[in-house]
Amino acid sequence: MTASLERGQRLRLVKFVAYGWSGSRSLPAVRDQADAALAGARRIGWEGLLGEQRSYLDAFWDRADVELDGDAEIQQAVRFSLFHVLQAGARAEGRAIAAKGLTGPGYDGHCFWGTEAYVLPVLTYVAPDAVAHALRWRHSTLPMAIERARLLGFAGAAFPWRTIHGEACSGYWPAGMAAFHVNADIADAVIRYLNVTDDEAFEKSTGLALLAETARLWRSLGHHDSEGRFRIDGVTGPDEYSAIADNNIYTNLMAQQNLAVAAEVAARHPEAARELNIDEEEMAAWRDAAKEMTIPFDDTLGVHPQSEGFTNHQVWDFAATVAEQYPLLLHFPYFDLYRKQVVKQADLVMAMHRRGDAFAAEQKARNFSYYEALTVRDSSLSACIQAVLAAEVGHLRLAYDYLAEAALMDLDDLEHNTRDGLHMAALAGSWIAVVAGLAGTRDRGGALSFAPRLPEELSRLAFKISFRKRRLAIDVRAGSTTYNLLEGEPLTFAHHGEAMTALLNEPIECPIPPAHAPSPIPTQPAGREPVRRRPTKARGG
Amino acid sequence: MTASLERGQRLRLVKFVAYGWSGSRSLPAVRDQADAALAGARRIGWEGLLGEQRSYLDAFWDRADVELDGDAEIQQAVRFSLFHVLQAGARAEGRAIAAKGLTGPGYDGHCFWGTEAYVLPVLTYVAPDAVAHALRWRHSTLPMAIERARLLGFAGAAFPWRTIHGEACSGYWPAGMAAFHVNADIADAVIRYLNVTDDEAFEKSTGLALLAETARLWRSLGHHDSEGRFRIDGVTGPDEYSAIADNNIYTNLMAQQNLAVAAEVAARHPEAARELNIDEEEMAAWRDAAKEMTIPFDDTLGVHPQSEGFTNHQVWDFAATVAEQYPLLLHFPYFDLYRKQVVKQADLVMAMHRRGDAFAAEQKARNFSYYEALTVRDSSLSACIQAVLAAEVGHLRLAYDYLAEAALMDLDDLEHNTRDGLHMAALAGSWIAVVAGLAGTRDRGGALSFAPRLPEELSRLAFKISFRKRRLAIDVRAGSTTYNLLEGEPLTFAHHGEAMTALLNEPIECPIPPAHAPSPIPTQPAGREPVRRRPTKARGG
Repeated sequence: MTASLERGQRLRLVKFVAYGWSGSRSLPAVRDQADAALAGARRIGWEGLLGEQRSYLDAFWDRADVELDGDAEIQQAVRFSLFHVLQAGARAEGRAIAAKGLTGPGYDGHCFWGTEAYVLPVLTYVAPDAVAHALRWRHSTLPMAIERARLLGFAGAAFPWRTIHGEACSGYWPAGMAAFHVNADIADAVIRYLNVTDDEAFEKSTGLALLAETARLWRSLGHHDSEGRFRIDGVTGPDEYSAIADNNIYTNLMAQQNLAVAAEVAARHPEAARELNIDEEEMAAWRDAAKEMTIPFDDTLGVHPQSEGFTNHQVWDFAATVAEQYPLLLHFPYFDLYRKQVVKQADLVMAMHRRGDAFAAEQKARNFSYYEALTVRDSSLSACIQAVLAAEVGHLRLAYDYLAEAALMDLDDLEHNTRDGLHMAALAGSWIAVVAGLAGTRDRGGALSFAPRLPEELSRLAFKISFRKRRLAIDVRAGSTTYNLLEGEPLTFAHHGEAMTALLNEPIECPIPPAHAPSPIPTQPAGREPVRRRPTKARGG
Repeated sequence: MTASLERGQRLRLVKFVAYGWSGSRSLPAVRDQADAALAGARRIGWEGLLGEQRSYLDAFWDRADVELDGDAEIQQAVRFSLFHVLQAGARAEGRAIAAKGLTGPGYDGHCFWGTEAYVLPVLTYVAPDAVAHALRWRHSTLPMAIERARLLGFAGAAFPWRTIHGEACSGYWPAGMAAFHVNADIADAVIRYLNVTDDEAFEKSTGLALLAETARLWRSLGHHDSEGRFRIDGVTGPDEYSAIADNNIYTNLMAQQNLAVAAEVAARHPEAARELNIDEEEMAAWRDAAKEMTIPFDDTLGVHPQSEGFTNHQVWDFAATVAEQYPLLLHFPYFDLYRKQVVKQADLVMAMHRRGDAFAAEQKARNFSYYEALTVRDSSLSACIQAVLAAEVGHLRLAYDYLAEAALMDLDDLEHNTRDGLHMAALAGSWIAVVAGLAGTRDRGGALSFAPRLPEELSRLAFKISFRKRRLAIDVRAGSTTYNLLEGEPLTFAHHGEAMTALLNEPIECPIPPAHAPSPIPTQPAGREPVRRRPTKARGG
């Protein structure tokens, strides 16, 4: 394009760019798609495109925004996190949500359990459609997972530890293939999505198939011992500083839920169940395995071992380990890490979050303290889950510090590898630390509950969640919390254990009961304490 | 060389060949060595060389020969074995005795625990000088083993799982580096050599150093639990179908002996101990760890688990495993092998042989039956040890079958890989199956004992052993055994638990007491029963 301009004359170029890609359609079809996008853009123009984008994001923030008063930097970081979780997850449409989203080459574009265990739990409450898409992607890889289970000698489906479109891509099997819990994490994401959306069409098709094939895996991976207890031996839990252990509690509790809910859902949809060849005997076998699941306990120490025998192992010599030796995996052989009590990332603590119903309050406090002293957080997946349990057992200050670590993972490049891409699970984790942590949001078995409590440093926390065709705004202050139903039928929920019913646009203010006397403040391994957070202004603000 | 010959005239060429090699000496020095050998050969001539060789072998057979009447093929095979053990071991002189000796390229010339655990136990009784050489070779690699322990974060010495001259050469760590028991196997070979030879000079120097540095390793590899028991977690025992397990009984019992004897020997040689910086506190720590060693027991089943928790694992589905799927390691992932009850090779059964003192007779019978049903013998190291325990618990027919399997490993190419070299440990094992097995020879703590008993198929078994400057001939028949002291001071030993004293050249005939009612015949995994042996004539005989 050429033009002759007189002095002072202005030329304005408006350039529209359309991008299309497909792994399956023909080149002409992809060209047509790009041409159509360009035609549409020309028609509505720059302002039109901007308006569409703005209205999409306005609608998102209207469902998803979190307000945190008292620490502008964390406020900003949590919004940064939500934006990136949306970017990574909202338009995956038939593709995996990768560990780095589309932000960098780290992990070579692979998707891990972090998608179902960290990213989807956020999207479920703020963009549930994206969750349905993500789970349909997993479902589309079911034939490969079934074939893989068969190859390994198991029934059902064995979803891979890392993958791009369904094939197993792990190299080191003790911390890859052996981490079978990814299957229960997928089931857990299905269960949460069903809980929150009541999407029966999804339940009957995608949901039941994912639940049933993973239940089949657990039933064949585990076995009954001579006393009739159901054991899952020789697997690896979330903590990658242990491997190939018996009865990892996180794995067993997640498998237990998987088995039990698969049986429930199959019973609700007998016809769909028959199509999957699920009969009454199989459902009974799932229920029985769930009921008899082995959950080891160390009577001497009064804590749960993360796996059988774990608490008998020698405690890592933290006093002799210097700062330069972290992350430990780069400085010590796995031989030594596996045989000692040292935890890379929340494992038993993760079990207490996901299956809080399986632990008494006193056990939670005791377990949390025990594992705090062993957990080095050499994984970005850890701090946010520690924040949730810290808040639940009453250590709000610690929860706040862990929230800050999760939220600033990439903005402060805490692991010195943000150049490889953002830590999508840790970003999602900052929302989890706020909503499940400080606000104590839980939704077990379809019952929504909150136990909000702010650390002294924050004066207010407000967020919204979508739940069964309703939208609820929660506004937490030091002494009380206000719940306001913005959309939908009346909603019953619990506030600090007390049942409340919210009616449309009728805010309820609930006082926050005084905290119990806190247990002693847990300690972390020397040099691995989280940074003591001081509220800070936003960057550039 | 040229010569003109008349018709009918004969030319006789006598060619002497000398061979020399050195990794350290200069080429002229090696040439001089070969020249000197040639000069010597020319001087004594062919008949002289033949005579030297014959007298060397006559002397060996006079100390080592085993006679087995009733099965000429096994007779031949046991002699074949002894010849090859001699070939591999007698002149190693400062080099490792490799798994294949010098017979083939298998294992790339590497030496493993089989040297100390199979080959040296034979040589100790028939050619003890070779054992001193072999252990001095290990001792020469001590600086590398100490450096390796340091690198891994342990005290003492960590001898490598596979090596040529001292460096660790293992690739797959769970079945290599983690198999720390090689250190106790070396110590065990030292202890046996000292027991049998009373070689005090060796004890004070090489022996003490090897015992002490391996004891130091165990003391730092293990730890005390909260109840004061000493545990060794996360290691791999002899059975390579399990890995990275806690309190492997073979490892723990061998480490226990290692620690206890190291303390004893150090106490006997205070000056030598001081040179190794061993003080009273360290010796006390060794004794304490030995005393408090954890030996798990399964009260429900009434058997010893080979490692903690092993007997809770699912039993391998032998019924669904077909002949073509053996050896299992080529057809199933280690993930699945490690988490199930399936045993590649004698492990707990090996513990009952090496540390027979740690098990009651009734436990031995019960354990043996339990592990027979799980052991697939995918290793050539297994049958001979199973023969020993089969004989000890009264299953003579089974002992005979296992003896045949060990003895014919290479002559019948049972593992289809004899082209890669002979299985030196299995060959040594055929002697072990005869002498420790059928003749029930033991030498715990310097006390020699026999419990001979022949299977019906054999009419006679005769062998000799060297023990503390004595040579004893043992001649076993169906109803009695004759002991004849061929050399040395009077010798006290036990025959089926009864004390006997043999005087020089005064044969004692001891009746063999009637056998106890045998326990039910143990069964093996379907398709893995040893071949039922039928006595056979020697090859070509």
